[in-house]
Order: sequence, then structure tokens, then C-alpha cells
Amino acid sequence: MRFLRIGPLGSERPALLAEDEAHAYDLSSVTGDIDGDFLSRLLSHPDSWRDLSSRAAAGEFPLVSLAGVRVGAPLSRPGKVVCIGLNYRDHAAETGAAIPAEPVVFMKAPNTVVGPDDEVLIPRNSTKTDYEVELAVVIGRTARYLETPAEAAGVIAGYAISNDVSEREFQLERGGTWDKGKSCETFNPLGPWLVTADEIADPQALGLRLSVNGESRQAGSTADMIFDVAHVVWYLSQFLVLEPGDVVNTGTPAGVAMGRAGTPFLQPGDVMELEIDGLGRQRQQLGKA
Amino acid sequence: MRFLRIGPLGSERPALLAEDEAHAYDLSSVTGDIDGDFLSRLLSHPDSWRDLSSRAAAGEFPLVSLAGVRVGAPLSRPGKVVCIGLNYRDHAAETGAAIPAEPVVFMKAPNTVVGPDDEVLIPRNSTKTDYEVELAVVIGRTARYLETPAEAAGVIAGYAISNDVSEREFQLERGGTWDKGKSCETFNPLGPWLVTADEIADPQALGLRLSVNGESRQAGSTADMIFDVAHVVWYLSQFLVLEPGDVVNTGTPAGVAMGRAGTPFLQPGDVMELEIDGLGRQRQQLGKA
Repeated sequence: MRFLRIGPLGSERPALLAEDEAHAYDLSSVTGDIDGDFLSRLLSHPDSWRDLSSRAAAGEFPLVSLAGVRVGAPLSRPGKVVCIGLNYRDHAAETGAAIPAEPVVFMKAPNTVVGPDDEVLIPRNSTKTDYEVELAVVIGRTARYLETPAEAAGVIAGYAISNDVSEREFQLERGGTWDKGKSCETFNPLGPWLVTADEIADPQALGLRLSVNGESRQAGSTADMIFDVAHVVWYLSQFLVLEPGDVVNTGTPAGVAMGRAGTPFLQPGDVMELEIDGLGRQRQQLGKA
Repeated sequence: MRFLRIGPLGSERPALLAEDEAHAYDLSSVTGDIDGDFLSRLLSHPDSWRDLSSRAAAGEFPLVSLAGVRVGAPLSRPGKVVCIGLNYRDHAAETGAAIPAEPVVFMKAPNTVVGPDDEVLIPRNSTKTDYEVELAVVIGRTARYLETPAEAAGVIAGYAISNDVSEREFQLERGGTWDKGKSCETFNPLGPWLVTADEIADPQALGLRLSVNGESRQAGSTADMIFDVAHVVWYLSQFLVLEPGDVVNTGTPAGVAMGRAGTPFLQPGDVMELEIDGLGRQRQQLGKA
């Protein structure tokens, strides 16, 4: 299943994407929102996944057209957004960083999450706003001290595209941790869909692509992650408690502006387009904060 | 006013502390919880602050004894917990760090927040769990690009004691940012009270004290902050959007275990006691995760 949230910012309605990708079933009668509680219920009662699909097929839910409809982030405000840095060899190399011996962890403020096609704002006093296409893992069950990476599959509700927008001067040249350059307003477009884990045969075999103004900038594969999804979720659970509705951004492949000739950082009016196999597409225009 | 939340973990009731500090008025008829929405309403309608006090004095709310009652964190799950590192000269010195030129920012996972007297768990595989008494600022109004530090006062709902518990090996020796050693389960005791800003004449003149097993470890004053509360809130608002219900931990004075002779890190069974002038006291016993 592919969940999404449609409608104006702050009053999105939960929905299930129809097969044609041009319509969605309004799930308002089933749940108030796509959030940690909803995902937790689904993971605890696997039959309800199948049930939702069949109820949709049976016409129980209103079918609405997506034409002209805003798509929001596919889950409401996460409890936290945990990120893995330098998780692709080619990206670590382009930034001049060593290959990490264990996952590099940082966080984004949860209120950075916006819809997949919402405007992204270049912060005031920013000259180094950058993009990062990433596979986002959405947690559906509490993960605390998982015994092995194999247990991670049991806590993952699904996957989505994430744009881990970053301000490199704030991140790297202003002292302290990376969080300062990762948490600016609108810095985490998410979606369009939350694709349930059962629909992704192998999360380590997904192509990721990002272009700016139609020019390809990133073209990688999750096969090239240094620490795979299962390892990352297991690892994080040794340090903190992941909860339903949390998001884990799993790192970006090479091609960010910081690592390219001429460092072509984002400018107002630029358009970013992102795509991950099976997870849909994002498109954001840059504005100014 | 001094707000608190009383009752079992996960089902705390909102309350207003009575003058004798041994009783509280149950505010369940006024608000479902002490949270961002509630604080936002209070800050937007200053008369309602006075009104709540007089309604309590007039006997409108049930008065309950605090004897034997668990006190939770004084606000429900924050949207984010933003922290300032190395914000006291003596603490920067004891850790061997340079005095920062601008605030050092990191984040704790919001689900680290627990009650002021709840058990604190030493993480598995930890040998360097440490304490940090801090003045916590609770945000009551959205702060985005404040023009000057003077505007910060308008967005602060109140203050509380925070214990920014830290695992130094995870923080400093395991690669990546500090967040890894700051976000472990139970690592942010908060409270007992959220003291409204009008009751704190000068947030830069508060003594902070922390002891372990009765032995004084930290004894400082917020007068010694490198960046004061107003500067910190203004500064953060240039990088991220602070929202009602967010918490800002403003740094710790000298005396942490990492900086002391013999590095006396916390052990199971140890008891931490924390106090800040006007903000009450915390007491946590250490357990094992």
C-alpha cells in the first residue's frame, strides 16, 4: 500500500493511493491521520493491511482525484528525524571525509518536514544551501536494543523519499555539530508516499536520482550504502529509542553541490526533482526565507 | 504560576502548584495537558494567566495532595529539545574545549524527557554516563528570525530544571556528532515545575547545583553563561523555527564527571540531586537499561 496525505498544509487528510496514481481513497473514516499510532496499529495487526486494500477495492472509501490537490508529507509530524551521515562511499569521498567506522548520527528538527512539492526556503544569510536525495525509513514499532540487524525488518513500517536539505556553512563552518545546518525551516521534504515495507522487495536495490533545473546531479543506488537499512536501524536502537512515526534518513550518494566543481549551491527559483525507484517523485522550487 | 503534571507515566494530569508546594490544583477542566497549545494560548492571552490564579484561589479547581504522587515532566512531549554546548567558561575549560565564538548547538531526541524524579538508565555498554544541571527554557510562542535578543522575552513561556544526561564515549569517541551520546532513553529529566517567566525576575541570576550521593559536584550561576538566554533564543531562531512546547537546554557549569579528577562517572544505584533557585529540586536514582 502507498499512503499519502492530501489537502492544505496543516489540515491534510489521510489517503490510500489508487493503482492509477491519479486518484486516492480518502481514509478519514478509518484514521484521523497517518501517524505513529496508525502505523503501530497496522504493524501489530498485519491482517488490517490486507483488509484496508480490499475495503478500498470494494468501494468503501471515497475515491478522490489528485489533480490540482496538494500532497503533504505522508505522515504527520514525526517524533524525531534521525539521520545517517556519509553513508555512501562516493559521497564521503567527495566531501573529503574518511569512510566512517560506524554510522555517523545527527538529527534534524522534526518541524523541518514539509510536503514533497512544497517550496523550500533558502535561509536568510545563506550562500551554501545544498540538496541530498535519501531513502527515508519510517518506523512503525518501538525499537529499543534490537538484538540483531535481522530484527530491524519487524519495526519498519515503510519507505519514502527524503530531501535532506543542508546549509553547508551553518553545518560545517559555524562551530558545534551539524544540526545547525540541517534544521532550517522547510529543510526536509518527505514523500509523496509512504510505501509499506511489503511492497519494497529489496531496500538495498533502489536507484536514487536528483536533478536541479533539469540537470542530473545525483544518480546512485541504495546498494552502495556503507551501512544498510537493517544495520542502521539496529545500530540506532543501541543509542536511542525509535518510536512509531519516527523517520530515519539513511544518507545520500555523491553529487551534492558541496562536492561538485564550482560548488553550484541552490539559488532562489531553482527547481529540484527527486526520484527513488518505487517511491514516486518530488519537485521543489527554491524560495527565500 | 508553577505548572506541573502529576500521575503515572503516560497519563499525567495538568496541575497548578499551590503556594505551600505540597498541594496542587487539578487543571483537567481547563486543559487536556500542559503542552505547546496550552502555553501558546496563555502567552497570547496574558489575562488568562492572572485568571487561572484567581480561579484557583476562588476554589474552582480540585486541590490534591502531592504526597506519594508521581510528578512527571512539566510539559508533555516537546516538539524538539535543542541544546547549547560549552555555554559556561569553566565547563568549556574543564572539557579542554575552546570558548566558542558563537553558540554550539546540538539536539536531544524528544523522547528522552522524563519526570524530575524518575529513574535514569545507564545505557547498555556504557561506562561514561555523566550529568549536567541546566536551565531549561520552555518556548510559548513561535520564534522565527527574531530581530534582536530583546525579542526573545516575548516567546519564552517559562523555565525548568533540566538534567542533560550524557554518555561521553557515545558523544565523543564513537564518530559523528554529539547527538549519539545525548539521546539515550531517560536522558532528560525535566521539572518538577514549569515556572512562568513572570516569576523569574532575572534568568541570569540563578544558582544551579547538582550533587551525586550527597557530594556536591556542580555549583554555578546562570550569571556565568557565555551566551545568555535572550541571545541563545534569538540565535537559534536564525537557524530553525522554535515552536510552543519546544525546550532549550542552555548549557551546564563546571563539575561534570568528565572534567573531574578520577572521572567519577555515574554508577547504578547512584543518586543525583539537582536544584536551581526558584525552580525546585530533582532527584534521580541510576538504574541499568
